[in-house]
Amino acid sequence: MKQKIRMGMVGGGQGAFIGAVHRMAAALDGEIELVCGAFSSDPERSKASAADLGIPEDRAYGSFDEMIRREKRLRPEKRMQFVSIVTPNHVHFAPAKMALENGFHVICDKPLAFDMKEALALEKIVEKTGLLFALTHNYTGYPMVKQARQMIRNGALGAIRKVVVEYPQGWLSTFLEQDGQKQAAWRTDPKRSGIAGAMGDIGTHAENLAEYITGLKITELCADISIFVPGRLLDDDGSVLLRFDNGAKGVLMASQISAGEENDLNIRVYGELGGIAWRQMEPNTLTVRWLDKPAELFRTGRGELYPEAQKHTRIPGGHPEGYLEAFANIYRNFALCIRAREEGRTIDPIYTDFPSVKDGVRGMKFVEKVIQSGKSKQKWINL
Amino acid sequence: MKQKIRMGMVGGGQGAFIGAVHRMAAALDGEIELVCGAFSSDPERSKASAADLGIPEDRAYGSFDEMIRREKRLRPEKRMQFVSIVTPNHVHFAPAKMALENGFHVICDKPLAFDMKEALALEKIVEKTGLLFALTHNYTGYPMVKQARQMIRNGALGAIRKVVVEYPQGWLSTFLEQDGQKQAAWRTDPKRSGIAGAMGDIGTHAENLAEYITGLKITELCADISIFVPGRLLDDDGSVLLRFDNGAKGVLMASQISAGEENDLNIRVYGELGGIAWRQMEPNTLTVRWLDKPAELFRTGRGELYPEAQKHTRIPGGHPEGYLEAFANIYRNFALCIRAREEGRTIDPIYTDFPSVKDGVRGMKFVEKVIQSGKSKQKWINL
Amino acid sequence: MKQKIRMGMVGGGQGAFIGAVHRMAAALDGEIELVCGAFSSDPERSKASAADLGIPEDRAYGSFDEMIRREKRLRPEKRMQFVSIVTPNHVHFAPAKMALENGFHVICDKPLAFDMKEALALEKIVEKTGLLFALTHNYTGYPMVKQARQMIRNGALGAIRKVVVEYPQGWLSTFLEQDGQKQAAWRTDPKRSGIAGAMGDIGTHAENLAEYITGLKITELCADISIFVPGRLLDDDGSVLLRFDNGAKGVLMASQISAGEENDLNIRVYGELGGIAWRQMEPNTLTVRWLDKPAELFRTGRGELYPEAQKHTRIPGGHPEGYLEAFANIYRNFALCIRAREEGRTIDPIYTDFPSVKDGVRGMKFVEKVIQSGKSKQKWINL
Amino acid sequence: MKQKIRMGMVGGGQGAFIGAVHRMAAALDGEIELVCGAFSSDPERSKASAADLGIPEDRAYGSFDEMIRREKRLRPEKRMQFVSIVTPNHVHFAPAKMALENGFHVICDKPLAFDMKEALALEKIVEKTGLLFALTHNYTGYPMVKQARQMIRNGALGAIRKVVVEYPQGWLSTFLEQDGQKQAAWRTDPKRSGIAGAMGDIGTHAENLAEYITGLKITELCADISIFVPGRLLDDDGSVLLRFDNGAKGVLMASQISAGEENDLNIRVYGELGGIAWRQMEPNTLTVRWLDKPAELFRTGRGELYPEAQKHTRIPGGHPEGYLEAFANIYRNFALCIRAREEGRTIDPIYTDFPSVKDGVRGMKFVEKVIQSGKSKQKWINL
Repeated sequence: MKQKIRMGMVGGGQGAFIGAVHRMAAALDGEIELVCGAFSSDPERSKASAADLGIPEDRAYGSFDEMIRREKRLRPEKRMQFVSIVTPNHVHFAPAKMALENGFHVICDKPLAFDMKEALALEKIVEKTGLLFALTHNYTGYPMVKQARQMIRNGALGAIRKVVVEYPQGWLSTFLEQDGQKQAAWRTDPKRSGIAGAMGDIGTHAENLAEYITGLKITELCADISIFVPGRLLDDDGSVLLRFDNGAKGVLMASQISAGEENDLNIRVYGELGGIAWRQMEPNTLTVRWLDKPAELFRTGRGELYPEAQKHTRIPGGHPEGYLEAFANIYRNFALCIRAREEGRTIDPIYTDFPSVKDGVRGMKFVEKVIQSGKSKQKWINL
Repeated sequence: MKQKIRMGMVGGGQGAFIGAVHRMAAALDGEIELVCGAFSSDPERSKASAADLGIPEDRAYGSFDEMIRREKRLRPEKRMQFVSIVTPNHVHFAPAKMALENGFHVICDKPLAFDMKEALALEKIVEKTGLLFALTHNYTGYPMVKQARQMIRNGALGAIRKVVVEYPQGWLSTFLEQDGQKQAAWRTDPKRSGIAGAMGDIGTHAENLAEYITGLKITELCADISIFVPGRLLDDDGSVLLRFDNGAKGVLMASQISAGEENDLNIRVYGELGGIAWRQMEPNTLTVRWLDKPAELFRTGRGELYPEAQKHTRIPGGHPEGYLEAFANIYRNFALCIRAREEGRTIDPIYTDFPSVKDGVRGMKFVEKVIQSGKSKQKWINL
Repeated sequence: MKQKIRMGMVGGGQGAFIGAVHRMAAALDGEIELVCGAFSSDPERSKASAADLGIPEDRAYGSFDEMIRREKRLRPEKRMQFVSIVTPNHVHFAPAKMALENGFHVICDKPLAFDMKEALALEKIVEKTGLLFALTHNYTGYPMVKQARQMIRNGALGAIRKVVVEYPQGWLSTFLEQDGQKQAAWRTDPKRSGIAGAMGDIGTHAENLAEYITGLKITELCADISIFVPGRLLDDDGSVLLRFDNGAKGVLMASQISAGEENDLNIRVYGELGGIAWRQMEPNTLTVRWLDKPAELFRTGRGELYPEAQKHTRIPGGHPEGYLEAFANIYRNFALCIRAREEGRTIDPIYTDFPSVKDGVRGMKFVEKVIQSGKSKQKWINL
Repeated sequence: MKQKIRMGMVGGGQGAFIGAVHRMAAALDGEIELVCGAFSSDPERSKASAADLGIPEDRAYGSFDEMIRREKRLRPEKRMQFVSIVTPNHVHFAPAKMALENGFHVICDKPLAFDMKEALALEKIVEKTGLLFALTHNYTGYPMVKQARQMIRNGALGAIRKVVVEYPQGWLSTFLEQDGQKQAAWRTDPKRSGIAGAMGDIGTHAENLAEYITGLKITELCADISIFVPGRLLDDDGSVLLRFDNGAKGVLMASQISAGEENDLNIRVYGELGGIAWRQMEPNTLTVRWLDKPAELFRTGRGELYPEAQKHTRIPGGHPEGYLEAFANIYRNFALCIRAREEGRTIDPIYTDFPSVKDGVRGMKFVEKVIQSGKSKQKWINL
């Protein structure tokens, strides 16, 4: 009988948003079981959250420190196999470090850490321990993103020339953090979020998506970074000119004051022969336009897709999959990798495809440089 | 500590499509646990499927009969609380009947039964036992379908005049059943599917959606029912004129030979003041057009929706939810109802909203009449 | 120096809608000059309209009778070459007949005539005189409609199985004719419109479009025809089951009480290999879905289109052409045919493609049968 | 009897693209008559073009110089009233200057001139002569652009914060100018086009559209300007960070190497309360998204629009108007202004709304600065 992979969670207690997303993503494919958690820095709330989630009292911990120490003492076949970290940015590093150093694999929400120093330290720990580490840049989990990546990899578009990636949201158009809205509060607080607001929260998703799909690296950038809402402490909008390592040019925009926008991450990539366009809000269509023939619509779940796309889909074409399914692809792959490793099997590279600690370091570097550029009179900053 | 609701499954073994959908839907919200199953009529395959799913051997049963008998003997706090039936149509009635008569609630895939006789018998059993019964007309689980229903209920469109509901698919454009494709084989086999092919498989979804959203009942119909693929035994296309109990008129189309279409269930409803349009393939937008003001786009996850829509959404606007989430809404509500009943609590009617055995009987009646009309020279047939 | 083709107009005076459309359509391509008119049955209004339009007083006529008689007496190189008839239905036949019998070509608005008797008589007159006659089923003038027709003709979709054509409007959702709205008044008046309201006004466009694109003929129909707005005298909504001469099935809907809809004529045609979809409100895209490869978007103005589409486009892809351009295609072709005939040249059949008197007779027959079916208890009526 | 306004044309002979567009735009509304032209710098081709266009031989001129001199000698009621200049950029200034100085109004294609010096000189001449001058930034002629402008003017969106304007095309993805394609040849030739390629040809449209809709002025910019196609002499792609006079930020992109794109000019503008989005390729819809209520779709031709939008529409909602109709709005307004001036009447400001010489000067300044910025290491350049 197949055993589910056992997960412990740090953060994500009552009232949190992203914790519930991680749990649904972990549950969807029946590969993972939530067995324990330190759901809040407040031990009482942690236990109450655990009870809600059907976690037995003896595995509802008051802190991640307690969780890691006590789980380690359990029998191998009972104790958690990996830790999922869903706390604000300033509480990524410490639990990740401790988990890894105690032999647990780690899935961590993005951005990787509070600052560059933590990010680099974490990268070293991952390397040293040799354990599995995934960062939930969940948008790369979408099947049509994988299809786009494969098309570009295989040269369907020719050499890439232009990349436009945008992430407009409107939910921070007002001074929401003043009203105590929890999601707004920590994301706009330099003590919890780090040096960046929008650029860290969603700009890193855009950067990750652009580099993932194109296989290119940003080498230089020039940013205009703004705070539009009076009283706000961190950026709520930014526009960035990009240059890539192959000579391609581009633009990245991330905004949380684009009033009326929901979560409209989208990307266009143009090569010599054609261009692709993808929008997260209608994620099951990939539009490919060609110089000399009709545009094509590639669709999730259809047989003509690359295996990389097909293997990240659960249901036939026309049965829309969404945000949670894309998020679940990261968890599913992570679980398959743990299982393969424990069984000493190699695994098809299709399933090792999830964002790594190196992607996380790259994202932190992007944040650092983009904020630096925003303050600089120098036109181009190297990344 | 909250206990998950315990589910046993009939059907859905290796190679099945809809069984996996039911399991993902059941797992998503963390309310339900799959504890046992009779996953195949072949005991060996049933056990192999169980092992894959992490079900212990002693709860992998060779038949639904065995499952129901043996589970009944387990301690109440261990045994399954409901049965999920995901077999082809001809194996809905027997397990549903037996489960209900042995005290288990039932979720059953649609259409309700093999024929009208079974359907009416099942309705009586549900009434007699007083147990919970849900039919997975999953498309009514979409938040924007619930929003549409509430808008119409509240009179936003005025009296309803016109309803157009379509369910075009193209996957049976060729003689797929001859190639042994499992999904095609049973759906086109009168011994397993009943008197109808497309009209039973997807026509009933369209009928259910139209009546659910409008709150109206179809009273008369006039159908043209076709078999386009040579050699096929059941209908693969049908178009139906509809008349409703308030005087509204309409058209229902269901087709599995609309080549190139994926799963494009869609509906438009027009009243005196405006009209709504919804498409399952982009399910998070409800378009409402008005006589004298700009059209509006209602979107899943936004604060301006009715509670009936909001309570069936998990994540904020712009994070697309899809087919599995809508399906999961039925399972989630069903689990909440079981829990409320066991705890002797009443429950907000928002959560008792899932398709019932009566909806199933109505669907079967629709199938019977639409097939009868297809063969008749009489213009209008009463429903 | 090239001379413009000279046009006289019947109807279309101050306050009319469709007359202005015809004039813009005629003017667009610089092939046609409006030289005279009988713009109203009221001679004073006719002259006032003429002055507005820059028509010299001596060619502003008080009636079509006067216009035809007096123009005939002018020198051949001065007198009008064709008559454009843009009056309500009950004033199509008389001016068309008289124009033809006096040697003038005719463009006439649709439907062809007030009733079947007039239609058949007109058909004979056209045949007898051998003159050019065009009916402004303008929607077949769209380039992407022509592209669709050619694709189907060339077998790209295989044998056609299913046709769905809809023409929803909402502007007659209220009892507009009571308020003296001119467009509503004559269209809902049996003395001016004939036996049909919506089915004549827009149902005939839908019928014409379906037969034009598919090359098939409707052989049987079964209709549900309604008057929804109390007090109205003619149908404002109808749904019709269709059977075609090759065994294809279909549905035609035409409605003027689909509240909130503007002018959403659209069609889908499915064959064995794929399906096409086209919407008049976004007319520059033709979506073609395939069984086994990605859907394609054909676009007005691009080089990969058939000549039949390319020759009905003026500007490059991405510069949207609309309703007036499609309408102008009929006028442009008509003018080219007149010119070729006068110069004794043959002409590429691409330019002889405009709706004929035969299409008009067919539309009138459709109206007759669809209204008859609406009143009948017999299921199928032959067309 | 109303007389048409008489137009003479410079350029636009056989094989030209934009000349035909200007002629269709001028003809559409029946306000303007083409009476003469110097259609080519080659007198023979000019005369041949004139013959094709139905221009009598005595008004087919061999050069603009000849045209202006000889027309001036005609009787006032016969001679042309304005000159339409549709030549490449390097032949804008001379005919415009001469026309104005001889008492003729001028419509000129964009960009205004070959360089800044010419532009400023022309501005002075226009001021001195007091004659009418229009620049065909045709995209501001779209009704929904005017609707957007009025909404912003009236404060519907609150203070503007963010503007994103894009103009992607793909037609210069290859070295088309080498193959002698006429449109490509002059646009990529510094001797005819000036210092800019894409930025002059389409970047100026984007700049004009952004300032027109928002009512704001760009004050600073930072550009990355590229030539992607080897051998090309002028820019074929550019991305520009923008700062506006009210503190708003933005991005402008113009590209002719976005392979597969047709002519996808589009703009989004976000204010404190909501955002608007408009795309030229589907120009009849203006999407307005709001912070706290459903998004709205404003549509060309509907009664709820501002008069500024309604008065630039010819046909009811759902009858799509396109590129030529928007272009015609400039000609129509220009003709109405000439007529009003000649009749000594004042005119509703709705009809004086067409791009002026000042807009042209601003566009030339934008070109100058954006090209300067592209070459500069300085981050921000003042505009």
